[in-house]
Amino acid sequence: MSESVRIVVDAMGGDFAPVETVKGAVDALKENERISVILTGNADVVNAELAKYEYPKDRVRVVATTQVIETGEPPVAAIQSKRDSSLVVGLNLVHTGEADAFVSSGSSGAVLVGGQAIVKKIRGIHRAPMAPVMPTAEGAALLIDCGANVDPRPQHLVQFAIMGSIYMKSVNGVENPRVALLNIGAEEEKGDTLRKETYPLLKACPDIHFVGNIEARDVPKGGADVIVTDAFSGNILLKMYEGVGSVMLHELKDGLTANLVSKLGAAMALPSLKKIFRKFDITNYGGAPLLGLKGLVVKTHGNAKAKEFKNTILQCVAFYDEDVNGKIVRYLEEERLKKESGNTVTADSEA
Amino acid sequence: MSESVRIVVDAMGGDFAPVETVKGAVDALKENERISVILTGNADVVNAELAKYEYPKDRVRVVATTQVIETGEPPVAAIQSKRDSSLVVGLNLVHTGEADAFVSSGSSGAVLVGGQAIVKKIRGIHRAPMAPVMPTAEGAALLIDCGANVDPRPQHLVQFAIMGSIYMKSVNGVENPRVALLNIGAEEEKGDTLRKETYPLLKACPDIHFVGNIEARDVPKGGADVIVTDAFSGNILLKMYEGVGSVMLHELKDGLTANLVSKLGAAMALPSLKKIFRKFDITNYGGAPLLGLKGLVVKTHGNAKAKEFKNTILQCVAFYDEDVNGKIVRYLEEERLKKESGNTVTADSEA
Repeated sequence: MSESVRIVVDAMGGDFAPVETVKGAVDALKENERISVILTGNADVVNAELAKYEYPKDRVRVVATTQVIETGEPPVAAIQSKRDSSLVVGLNLVHTGEADAFVSSGSSGAVLVGGQAIVKKIRGIHRAPMAPVMPTAEGAALLIDCGANVDPRPQHLVQFAIMGSIYMKSVNGVENPRVALLNIGAEEEKGDTLRKETYPLLKACPDIHFVGNIEARDVPKGGADVIVTDAFSGNILLKMYEGVGSVMLHELKDGLTANLVSKLGAAMALPSLKKIFRKFDITNYGGAPLLGLKGLVVKTHGNAKAKEFKNTILQCVAFYDEDVNGKIVRYLEEERLKKESGNTVTADSEA
Repeated sequence: MSESVRIVVDAMGGDFAPVETVKGAVDALKENERISVILTGNADVVNAELAKYEYPKDRVRVVATTQVIETGEPPVAAIQSKRDSSLVVGLNLVHTGEADAFVSSGSSGAVLVGGQAIVKKIRGIHRAPMAPVMPTAEGAALLIDCGANVDPRPQHLVQFAIMGSIYMKSVNGVENPRVALLNIGAEEEKGDTLRKETYPLLKACPDIHFVGNIEARDVPKGGADVIVTDAFSGNILLKMYEGVGSVMLHELKDGLTANLVSKLGAAMALPSLKKIFRKFDITNYGGAPLLGLKGLVVKTHGNAKAKEFKNTILQCVAFYDEDVNGKIVRYLEEERLKKESGNTVTADSEA
């Protein structure tokens, strides 16, 4: 495929904007010549950053904006009032079809609200979940949802399972992705009301490869390709992953440099140590897409550096090439037809 | 204090029973001469284990039982039908006042159900939460709840906060324990319905030192002494802590022995590495008590070894000496009196 993929980068979003956002965009441009980038933000600031690098100028455009949405702002009010922010303008470029994807490291709430309000959900999708890929000992797993939908209904989780399966098959090349329900025990009857009501629906769904419950303890080991849960517990899981990893790394660094012998030992073991930490470094795995929207919106960590922006931009190309949204649309259409012919009761039977 | 503390150990519960249960009991007896132990289980098997050791025979009693509750059994049915199991007989010894505490590594569900059904809740307590102490970079924090109460109401979480504060002050010696609500953001309005309704109640509660929301990412760092949540998300948090730790440890071991240089380096750094892993090894922190029962019931990990049993038995002494249950009873009594005089609306205002 040689089509161009047009990606908007919110140059002003995140802790290290615009230095790292612009650098990440430039790095991605160099790595894949099909990419073109639109940077939204303060034109002077963004151009000054761009001036630091050599890059293919015909594939970069700066769209000047005058406002920035800050992390602490209430998302709905911010989206409504800051029409000329780098985030809102960027999302609008996807909505109008001028761009294929939007990447931002800005306020999670604003990306979530803005994504649903501006880019809009695919018809038939109840909620648009945020779905990051997490490292595991055996590779990677998609966690869906982890930030968009608190208090979901069981039927929403079934849609998450279907969209997650489409994503992992298309973007990560997993044949017949194993779907598991995050729960507090392995047996079918375990969990709270949401889990007890969701389990039989997943089990009965013919469009996924459901392998039962997965306990949090087993998530880092692997065992599932798509881990389905509500946004609250998904957020707890993901943040705990990051938190334990970062505290252990910190303690290791402190501990290993505490005396000369351990310092020497650490230096010798460094390549091995680095390899392990890289494997569990969540920033290597790109951003978290919001699935089920009419265009691609991807949220990167607030503290993302250039490497994460670059990886996220490259990930957008796979999403585009594999036509993940088209597959979701076609799936929903088939479901609608099946339902009309009275053959099946599925995730989509409840609006 | 020189009073004797009588602790029942379910000798048949857990993956490594009775070898590790009996060894843990013997080790605890040697470490604290105020402890006396009652071992429930198959008398021949338990006596054969005891015969391996030198121990103060006057402080050990074996109560013969003929049944064992297995991990996979449905808890309610198991408690009702296996009246002569090591677990049910052990809990009954606490209920009748023949013992002060019960420790088991057996089925979580059976311990939870049996604790509430046999030992029974203190009058005025809505739900009895399971509350393990977790290691953090700054020391330790109590996670309450993590296994007993799915779908709790906000008022239940306020009681958890109060009981957790009493526990951390009494048993861990934390003056004015900081209570935080586990949530997906720092701001008051964050979270699902349960969190949104619980936050203002915790904020208004005069009997705790509420410090606001805590995100999962910050839990391993410290920052709170009592972390309040529902059992579902608490279980996810705890199991993820254990899961990430164990996978990282495993990968480190593999990685560091992959070649000679890193092997040598690892050997030199070993004392430092060990110190770090010990710090984050959850088995050093004893078992998880069920708070709010009329007697003390403590659940240890299914794969607990002698060290964890010993630590848990020693922890029971502190719980007993500090009269945690008496403090909870007195708190509820004061609340009742205040309510009768019409002065306050508190956690206890909803049955």
